[in-house]
Amino acid sequence: MKSIRILFFLFLTLPAFSQSADESAIKQIFDLALSNGKSYEMLHDLTINIGPRLSGSPGAAAAVEWSRHVMEQHGFDSVWLQPVMVPHWVRGQKEVGSIISKKIGTVSVNVCALGGSIGTGPSGIATGVVEVKSFDELKMLGAKGVQGKIVFFNRPMDPTKIDAFAAYGGAVDQRGGGAAQAVKYGAVAVLVRSMGLNQEEYPHTGGMRYAPDGNKIPALAISTKHADVLSKLLKEEKDLQFYLENHSVMLEDAPSFNVIGEIKGSEFPEEIILVGGHLDSWDLAQGAHDDGAGCVQAIEVLRLFNAMGIKPKHTIRAVMFMNEENGLRGGLKYAELAEKNKEKHIVAIESDRGGFTPRGFTMTAPKAVRDKIKNWRSLLEPYGLTDFDQEGGGADIGPLQRQGVPVMEFLPDSQRYFDYHHTREDTIDKVSKRELELGAASMAALVYLIDKYGLK
Amino acid sequence: MKSIRILFFLFLTLPAFSQSADESAIKQIFDLALSNGKSYEMLHDLTINIGPRLSGSPGAAAAVEWSRHVMEQHGFDSVWLQPVMVPHWVRGQKEVGSIISKKIGTVSVNVCALGGSIGTGPSGIATGVVEVKSFDELKMLGAKGVQGKIVFFNRPMDPTKIDAFAAYGGAVDQRGGGAAQAVKYGAVAVLVRSMGLNQEEYPHTGGMRYAPDGNKIPALAISTKHADVLSKLLKEEKDLQFYLENHSVMLEDAPSFNVIGEIKGSEFPEEIILVGGHLDSWDLAQGAHDDGAGCVQAIEVLRLFNAMGIKPKHTIRAVMFMNEENGLRGGLKYAELAEKNKEKHIVAIESDRGGFTPRGFTMTAPKAVRDKIKNWRSLLEPYGLTDFDQEGGGADIGPLQRQGVPVMEFLPDSQRYFDYHHTREDTIDKVSKRELELGAASMAALVYLIDKYGLK
Repeated sequence: MKSIRILFFLFLTLPAFSQSADESAIKQIFDLALSNGKSYEMLHDLTINIGPRLSGSPGAAAAVEWSRHVMEQHGFDSVWLQPVMVPHWVRGQKEVGSIISKKIGTVSVNVCALGGSIGTGPSGIATGVVEVKSFDELKMLGAKGVQGKIVFFNRPMDPTKIDAFAAYGGAVDQRGGGAAQAVKYGAVAVLVRSMGLNQEEYPHTGGMRYAPDGNKIPALAISTKHADVLSKLLKEEKDLQFYLENHSVMLEDAPSFNVIGEIKGSEFPEEIILVGGHLDSWDLAQGAHDDGAGCVQAIEVLRLFNAMGIKPKHTIRAVMFMNEENGLRGGLKYAELAEKNKEKHIVAIESDRGGFTPRGFTMTAPKAVRDKIKNWRSLLEPYGLTDFDQEGGGADIGPLQRQGVPVMEFLPDSQRYFDYHHTREDTIDKVSKRELELGAASMAALVYLIDKYGLK
Repeated sequence: MKSIRILFFLFLTLPAFSQSADESAIKQIFDLALSNGKSYEMLHDLTINIGPRLSGSPGAAAAVEWSRHVMEQHGFDSVWLQPVMVPHWVRGQKEVGSIISKKIGTVSVNVCALGGSIGTGPSGIATGVVEVKSFDELKMLGAKGVQGKIVFFNRPMDPTKIDAFAAYGGAVDQRGGGAAQAVKYGAVAVLVRSMGLNQEEYPHTGGMRYAPDGNKIPALAISTKHADVLSKLLKEEKDLQFYLENHSVMLEDAPSFNVIGEIKGSEFPEEIILVGGHLDSWDLAQGAHDDGAGCVQAIEVLRLFNAMGIKPKHTIRAVMFMNEENGLRGGLKYAELAEKNKEKHIVAIESDRGGFTPRGFTMTAPKAVRDKIKNWRSLLEPYGLTDFDQEGGGADIGPLQRQGVPVMEFLPDSQRYFDYHHTREDTIDKVSKRELELGAASMAALVYLIDKYGLK
């Protein structure tokens, strides 16, 4: 009777075994990440002891050595550097921005050069300002309205978008392309409303691009608070003057590196599961959320596997990409070499939306792959991972995606990201240790499932 | 042909009309809260211009007047005060805590009296320390191990609980009941490890209770960082001494008020939908998350209804409860009068888990009510509200729940709450404007649906 009972019990429970084993493994991953995780300690070290690390800067070089050292210390099977030439832009001394009003005198405002901008020269630029909300409006004004002036792009991020990245996406054309558009009509500089949702004192930097065949004019961001001040004053005094001065310069391309560490797969060593973030950050702060968080989370995935004694079937590779912020050279170089060396990536997962509390993963992949991943939802939902329906990967893995690799991005809560993004405020004190650890564990849990079941 | 097409179109779309109208109304609520919300402005005013507001304090009295004024200014149909006598505990001058070691000398540590604690007297207490992790361990030590000593309760919150409130729930017995237990065995004071998940410099206060028939001994919290220091030193030097000094005193009960505002229902004025938070806060900080956030969110629900011109069918009532932190007298008084006056509450919804990004709502209600609310899930999920499966209401509405009223609590993300809870760090700069606004809109959307469809 007893043995029959046991058999019956086995029969009943066997089909559920795998789910239960996975539940247990994922719980162990989270338990370890939350009770003895290293992601916060790593991020503290990177942000406090290295800090800003724009491509080509001494900080970036130090971060490369730091990453190699950390991954070696964690005992990954191999750690190496992948050389890549990167743009080398330097901000120079602090920018100056002033509204010069006939009515109220000179009002100092907070501005910063956008990454890639040329400088004004030491004597600065003083001229009138014309405010526009869109490229269409700029075009309607034409040379007649714009010639010799500073164009002030002042369309705010839309606060009614629930996903803050959607609000960013709806405004960032002004930052990236404003100068290239305004110069067509004879503008001498552009001021762009900072990409933030709050009234803030501090400006947000970020990448901008000149047209390959166009002239170059200085491009600066103005804080949201001061953008509102300027806009208000312009309504009262259309011909007020603005003085701006910045000393940015683009130097020769500089040598740098992607930093790569991996644990070799036991069954399919040639099949790679990539987790990554970008090591470079803007020069105004520590790059804690953007993207120190993503880097340490990627390293933590491999460290958790090692610490738990999980021998992955596939090769798990952590990649610290260089130069996401102003060139994407690291991502391009990585994909170029992957193709050349016939490397097979079964998936590439980036974390580049900050170290906030987990909400899910985005994915751009064939339907069969997406369906397989969505089938794991019940295993991941207990950890707050409920959103698997958005498209997307990360910028650095875009070049891999174009080679047909399925890509995913860790999707944390978006609400606070643009309070800090590309500003002096992106510092370690804005990172919650638990939120960071939950993100690392979320990525490790996903990698665990992909490694165990594959994506075919 | 054309008219047939239109009829066919109407026929197809009519059944979906209600869903679509609700979608649209909820989108309008969120749009308004995010583009022209007042919750953050209100919270800024309350925290900066009033600040701490422990029951019986001048801050609490000012907060009562503030709430009345704000709700009157927003044009609610009626605003009134509900008198209630509250405990009046005063911390007195700053506490002193020192480890006195023969090996390393005196080490100053950060402690604070728990709310309700008696004082040590001006000469303080200096004696040995015995560390325990649980009441069972205390009992095993008995009078022999404890007599004349300070009992140091040092069981940490469990970091592997994904819900930080579960981690809190697993440790807070030490704070609430530690003194009452330790005094049975002759302890002269208790030190309780702060209720926080991080290594922090600052202690967390919070309520504690003596047994009605027991002696009273001083009860203080020690910062998590210093709890670890003390524990480590105790392992090396079992007979080290600890000096503590606090000057707390319980005064006579003081008069105070719940503050209530409402919009009268057009069809069922006698049926009340209650939204609330608690107006009192601990004395160490501004009470931004606990529970200024809940108060302004409740007020914002009614303000949004007014601003959008929504005339509710049921009466919508915002209640600022007094004395949640150390007595619950406001909640008890409110329920007592509701019963006496035969008021009918169809639901009571509290916000008292901080102004963080929305995740869902808890509920304790009959199954039919829960099912009805869960049926609205597809309308709320686009706003990050995905968790409707947890039991619970808020402390202040517990007395209503015991009268049979369905209760709910707004459920924001829990990860950062205990970084600030009951500490000097619970300040307005820890509140994200957008997260706060999303919470207010979430509550307004829920109230909109309950008002429109009822809960029967």
